[in-house]
Amino acid sequence: MSDKSDTHVILLAHGSSDPNWQATFEALARPSCEALPQAVVGYMELCEPSLEQQIAHLKQAGASRIKIVPLFLAQGRHLRKDVPAMLAAYQSQYQIPLELTAPIGEHPALAESIRRIVGDILQDESPNPFS
Amino acid sequence: MSDKSDTHVILLAHGSSDPNWQATFEALARPSCEALPQAVVGYMELCEPSLEQQIAHLKQAGASRIKIVPLFLAQGRHLRKDVPAMLAAYQSQYQIPLELTAPIGEHPALAESIRRIVGDILQDESPNPFS
Repeated sequence: MSDKSDTHVILLAHGSSDPNWQATFEALARPSCEALPQAVVGYMELCEPSLEQQIAHLKQAGASRIKIVPLFLAQGRHLRKDVPAMLAAYQSQYQIPLELTAPIGEHPALAESIRRIVGDILQDESPNPFS
Repeated sequence: MSDKSDTHVILLAHGSSDPNWQATFEALARPSCEALPQAVVGYMELCEPSLEQQIAHLKQAGASRIKIVPLFLAQGRHLRKDVPAMLAAYQSQYQIPLELTAPIGEHPALAESIRRIVGDILQDESPNPFS
């Protein structure tokens, strides 16, 4: 039986060399990381902290299990192949159970959130930037 | 002055040759399209209906203005360059005002939704698929 209090979460983003791109993902993760002390962000590539750095850090800090939650809307090659291969290697290397969850885009709550956002956008009478 | 009732929304997804990928985006858009008769989905490439097909369809159906809402988490090259160029061309071709909004990932409501999803995942005691 795992101790639920020792379960941690890494919000996994792809990573980009564009600082604006990284800033958007940090903003997407901020409410989670502020509300949940067990949640951190990690990147596949091009940004730090990397997924591997976060796994090593959480293991060192006493985590008994880590869930990896992809900040992706849908599953492509990265989530079907690359990330599972990375996690199998890190699980062996760091001796900590790693669980890859579905990407956030597959959670029904996200589709409901999009519905509310689209409703707000329809109500917004902002100017047309192409006029 | 535009008539708000004639404003429509196209939820813009990138498109993929993977039918599972498209199914995820259709599920992400479904609550919006079911709740809002002014909302439809369109794809940049590789899937149908295309963005251009939806613009032509909505113009034909009497839309006076279309907002394009990217189902993207962050802005990369597509949203900064490719999509604005496509919209400038379509606006001229179809003679209808087109407005590109921020991607859904930049809306604070989405970050809050992710926080709730991550909280649910932390509570979920599902097995570890790598064990």
